[in-house]
Amino acid sequence: MSELTIWTLDWAPEGPRGFVRDLRLRWACEEADLVYAIRTIPFDGRETNHLARQPFGQVPFLSDGQLEIFESGAGLLHLARKSDKLMPPDPVGEAETLQWTIAALNSIEMVTVPWWFLKISGDENNGLTGWMGKRLDQLEEILSEREWLAADRFTIADLLMADVLRVSAVRAFGDRPATEAYVARAIDRPSFKKARADQISLFEAADEKRLRARGMGKLRD
Amino acid sequence: MSELTIWTLDWAPEGPRGFVRDLRLRWACEEADLVYAIRTIPFDGRETNHLARQPFGQVPFLSDGQLEIFESGAGLLHLARKSDKLMPPDPVGEAETLQWTIAALNSIEMVTVPWWFLKISGDENNGLTGWMGKRLDQLEEILSEREWLAADRFTIADLLMADVLRVSAVRAFGDRPATEAYVARAIDRPSFKKARADQISLFEAADEKRLRARGMGKLRD
Repeated sequence: MSELTIWTLDWAPEGPRGFVRDLRLRWACEEADLVYAIRTIPFDGRETNHLARQPFGQVPFLSDGQLEIFESGAGLLHLARKSDKLMPPDPVGEAETLQWTIAALNSIEMVTVPWWFLKISGDENNGLTGWMGKRLDQLEEILSEREWLAADRFTIADLLMADVLRVSAVRAFGDRPATEAYVARAIDRPSFKKARADQISLFEAADEKRLRARGMGKLRD
Repeated sequence: MSELTIWTLDWAPEGPRGFVRDLRLRWACEEADLVYAIRTIPFDGRETNHLARQPFGQVPFLSDGQLEIFESGAGLLHLARKSDKLMPPDPVGEAETLQWTIAALNSIEMVTVPWWFLKISGDENNGLTGWMGKRLDQLEEILSEREWLAADRFTIADLLMADVLRVSAVRAFGDRPATEAYVARAIDRPSFKKARADQISLFEAADEKRLRARGMGKLRD
């Protein structure tokens, strides 16, 4: 069995399929040809059934031998040390990758996720809209001048930034052709497609098990 | 001159003094006894006058010899490699520090900053309030069981988490005694106090220069 294990939910509703964040770690492993296993925790009771391993009740988390590590961004930085395919090994390339990885988490996603949360809560024109537009415009400037964010090549910074930006509501927020081309370029990579298909397959296969379990539940009633 | 340079604004209004994020990098350098210099970019025109070095027009950024790195979280992870005082060197301690550093940026600050932004925009009971309470409650659980987040000792994860949590509106949001004690413990450290005092001194000293410059401007009118 692989030492490297990505933990995710054993099932997810249709909406988030293809977007649960274990995809970030799967994608990285696929990019770098790292051998990994997938293991799951139950969807039912997920808010409290794994707090000892993820204190916010979320997925994914990663195990690597004796190590355990939660937060997808931390998992990516951990995996990046295993392969030059994820991050250049020279100090300049590493620093560029690190800064853009953190920028994806703390300058872009810090706006897009709360904005999206307010939007799906019914507040379409919410108080974060102006900030969101400004940040995405600043990013559009950058992406109109380069193919990838760091070190003139694909890195985990792009993997993460593209995953943040590919959310359909974010893609539909204004017309930013360089950003759209960047997202399209990233998600056209075979490693992304495999990671996404594998995640969706896992959750689809669980539909049947859940139906069966519910049927058995009924029989026992 | 020091190889390590923290770049910040040459002046800031009173409100943000003591909270501009160069403080995170100053604090880390003080904790680890790293020699560093402070250099500044002009407050006036800050949104566009340093986009080549910080694409979102923000501070801080760090230079370290030939390296440049923006995003305070990235700067902290970069500095942490220089001293065991900031992050334990063993793989388990390093993984714990990394995951809690990213948690501060992407699970806590991702809620607190947008919540605060909506609040100061006049939306006191905004749509992020429930999410904010939940995240801070989860963190309170953790902090009621341990003194520091990672590896049974102070690390950059605490430096960052405490900096996120010490914002007065966040401290005043509900009654969470373990979190409050944690913040108090962190900001009682001499290295924090020095970093904060130094930042405030820089901006105060600039008040006089700005007044003088304005006066001279008037003379030239």
